[in-house]
Amino acid sequence: MKNGRLIVISGFSGAGKGTVVKKVVEKYGYSLSISATTRAPREGEVDGKDYHFKTVEDFKNLIDYNGFVEWTQYVENYYGTPRKFLEDEIDAGRDVILEIEVKGAMNIRAQYPDAVLIFITTRNVDILRDRLSNRGSESEEIIDKRIKRACEEAKFMGEYDFVVVNDDVDECVDTVNSIIISQKCRKEENEKLIEEIQKDFEAKA
Amino acid sequence: MKNGRLIVISGFSGAGKGTVVKKVVEKYGYSLSISATTRAPREGEVDGKDYHFKTVEDFKNLIDYNGFVEWTQYVENYYGTPRKFLEDEIDAGRDVILEIEVKGAMNIRAQYPDAVLIFITTRNVDILRDRLSNRGSESEEIIDKRIKRACEEAKFMGEYDFVVVNDDVDECVDTVNSIIISQKCRKEENEKLIEEIQKDFEAKA
Repeated sequence: MKNGRLIVISGFSGAGKGTVVKKVVEKYGYSLSISATTRAPREGEVDGKDYHFKTVEDFKNLIDYNGFVEWTQYVENYYGTPRKFLEDEIDAGRDVILEIEVKGAMNIRAQYPDAVLIFITTRNVDILRDRLSNRGSESEEIIDKRIKRACEEAKFMGEYDFVVVNDDVDECVDTVNSIIISQKCRKEENEKLIEEIQKDFEAKA
Repeated sequence: MKNGRLIVISGFSGAGKGTVVKKVVEKYGYSLSISATTRAPREGEVDGKDYHFKTVEDFKNLIDYNGFVEWTQYVENYYGTPRKFLEDEIDAGRDVILEIEVKGAMNIRAQYPDAVLIFITTRNVDILRDRLSNRGSESEEIIDKRIKRACEEAKFMGEYDFVVVNDDVDECVDTVNSIIISQKCRKEENEKLIEEIQKDFEAKA
């Protein structure tokens, strides 16, 4: 059987990446990798759905046992991508979506050169700022911080295979799915099929 | 404005390529390049829709005036891809689909390196033979001839960017559209956008 594919999705906070990932998974039935973290659950967050919530001790133990494909420490919290789920899904021939920040994405690419990297962006910075402001829940200071962080992340956009502008969520969802589907048809992914058909012709034509 | 893209679709006679192209154009509204030919119209064929029907004299004159992107002689008839329509559509930012045999496709690729080449195939030779037989209109001899021709064409499959197996026409139509959409999001097609966003951040973050 053919292996599944890793689909890495990054994007600016405020570009709608979270919503897009959620809808792509719901609408098209891809597997979704759930990150592990040591930060406390926020209200409404469900263990095993939003994150796998871990103690620092458990997390560090998993690091020691090579349990993460990649992990990082951000402020005082740990975040990581569990290895087992990812590899089981790929082995079972299922495509897995990972929503992950840029450095984690570069880390994944280094280990899985066949991973498909998709970056979701707004068309420009003003739209990003508007979307962050319209959430209404965040202070100007936090918005500035997110914009500064996005500025750093933007430096990695050229490392991605695909860049999708999120002007409209539903269109963006379908475009991400189109990218995933198109990858299966790439010549490089079908060398074996091509060879089989060519041999079949040699035998039967 | 961004240029349109050339989408070259080839495939075995009997793989359903003609139906797929027709449906992709109808469903998703792409432009379709109509070939010119000197062969006589068959019953029901409409000039300007199925082909641009030309006299040998007119066709040769157009060759002299560089009116074809590529042309070929097959048995005693000429076939060619009119240049003007193609270039006008690309300049207007519209994607154009060309249904064309393998050697014409290679010819197009040499002139338009950015063209996207898609090959439509059945999963194997038996299915191809079944589909040709089920048309009911063709003798065993003609079917054998088509299979032999397909065998020659199969040697070029590895030169295509994408290979799509036509197990189900409607799925195949959507897959071809997915491929076209995904191409617009390729990093290489969005260098300018990436640069603009990065500059925008530098100015505003």
